[in-house]
Amino acid sequence: MPEARLITSPANPEIKRIRGLALRKKREEERLFVAEGLRHVMEAIEAGWPLETLVYRADVAQRPKVAEARAATAAAGGFCLEVTEAVLAKMTKRDNPQTVVGVLRQRWQPLEGIAPGKLWIALETVRDPGNLGTVLRTADAVAADGVILIGETCDPYSPESVRASMGSVVRVPLVRATPEPFLAWRAGWPGLVVGTHLSGDADYRAVAYDPPVLLIMGNEQAGLTDALAAACDRLVKIPMAGGADSLNLSVATAVMLFEIARARLAL
Amino acid sequence: MPEARLITSPANPEIKRIRGLALRKKREEERLFVAEGLRHVMEAIEAGWPLETLVYRADVAQRPKVAEARAATAAAGGFCLEVTEAVLAKMTKRDNPQTVVGVLRQRWQPLEGIAPGKLWIALETVRDPGNLGTVLRTADAVAADGVILIGETCDPYSPESVRASMGSVVRVPLVRATPEPFLAWRAGWPGLVVGTHLSGDADYRAVAYDPPVLLIMGNEQAGLTDALAAACDRLVKIPMAGGADSLNLSVATAVMLFEIARARLAL
Repeated sequence: MPEARLITSPANPEIKRIRGLALRKKREEERLFVAEGLRHVMEAIEAGWPLETLVYRADVAQRPKVAEARAATAAAGGFCLEVTEAVLAKMTKRDNPQTVVGVLRQRWQPLEGIAPGKLWIALETVRDPGNLGTVLRTADAVAADGVILIGETCDPYSPESVRASMGSVVRVPLVRATPEPFLAWRAGWPGLVVGTHLSGDADYRAVAYDPPVLLIMGNEQAGLTDALAAACDRLVKIPMAGGADSLNLSVATAVMLFEIARARLAL
Repeated sequence: MPEARLITSPANPEIKRIRGLALRKKREEERLFVAEGLRHVMEAIEAGWPLETLVYRADVAQRPKVAEARAATAAAGGFCLEVTEAVLAKMTKRDNPQTVVGVLRQRWQPLEGIAPGKLWIALETVRDPGNLGTVLRTADAVAADGVILIGETCDPYSPESVRASMGSVVRVPLVRATPEPFLAWRAGWPGLVVGTHLSGDADYRAVAYDPPVLLIMGNEQAGLTDALAAACDRLVKIPMAGGADSLNLSVATAVMLFEIARARLAL
């Protein structure tokens, strides 16, 4: 295994480059993102995502899992950076940083290549990265085939989204599309297309969700736009009984996903 | 209506007092909290929560709803503070602040006074204020009777929780208790007590949730403690099919709540 370089300064150019990935612009330019924590780094490696760079606190270098991550990174042509806790704290903007951080290459599937599978989720202009990461986590939990981001959305590879996904960001295929190509692609969808909508005419529990299902969810403030609502075969409502007139987006998506997957989820 | 005082300095003592409510210690001492936005302020007034202080941008003072809020505040003996946008930005730590902010008195129901009703939720040592606020919003959506916070939890009256609750914090009764009195009180619970647990022996969809139901959810990292798991009549699992081995707490709580309320929720 090659010698790792020990870095003690947050101003080191390699560290500055990784710190720069906190900005979406830099992430987009470099097509990279950051995953924090040994567990999520190992999950990424296991899911077939070689690390572009592995960063770890010098004193944990010999731990078996860290050694495994170092070996996997080196074998795939990646870099290993030994650093101090202060450098990790700066890098992740956290007082108690994880001991291991991975830099990974973003992956975007082309819309054209999507095989319908059982269940795809499309999110229109989702704004909140915590919501997006939580949707990825739930999508992973119900074994959804992937998530399509329509229009101007927040970044699934932002630190907040990656954290909220709890590692699922490397297991759920991601697609992004502007509305026009999405609608053109949707025209060829072979199964049910369902969305939630205030003017939905069906109870969400009253629809037969035979696969493949495409679930389209609107954004946090406005719900589905007319164009995307019109693209749905069924518009459904989640009934509410109390004072709240809407659900959090990641909650509404989860309620829909567990309903759609109801027939095939078993203990 | 009394004259409002126009305040232009974020260093004004009244404004500093309200800004101090960003800290939990100050909120606990003063038993106050902050709700942002005209909509949530009006909802609080409608829900019978007179404002301790109403803060609004001077140029919106004459808008009908703001005038209504001012009148309601004055009638209830509260203060009205006219301020500049810069003051609101400082107060809420936001670049584009709401035009109206309300300071409200916290409300905690005593554990002893709880009438079982249909559905109570107990959260053990919940850590994330966004999760807590989202649970309050979902609890409100299914008309739950209230939420009990067990042990050292984050603060439902924190700005992040209040924002995530989308106004539901004033509609969902809140109780807090240490584990011992909670367990003593639980002994008198007349209906089903259910919790989610990794070693749950029942599918969450296979249980008859006849009211009253008490749902106990463990915390984000560790799930239910043994003591609280032992207090459940049934421990259930939410089946998962993919790579994620757990759900976000507010998502898991929502999936449970919509299952428990399934028989009585109707469009």
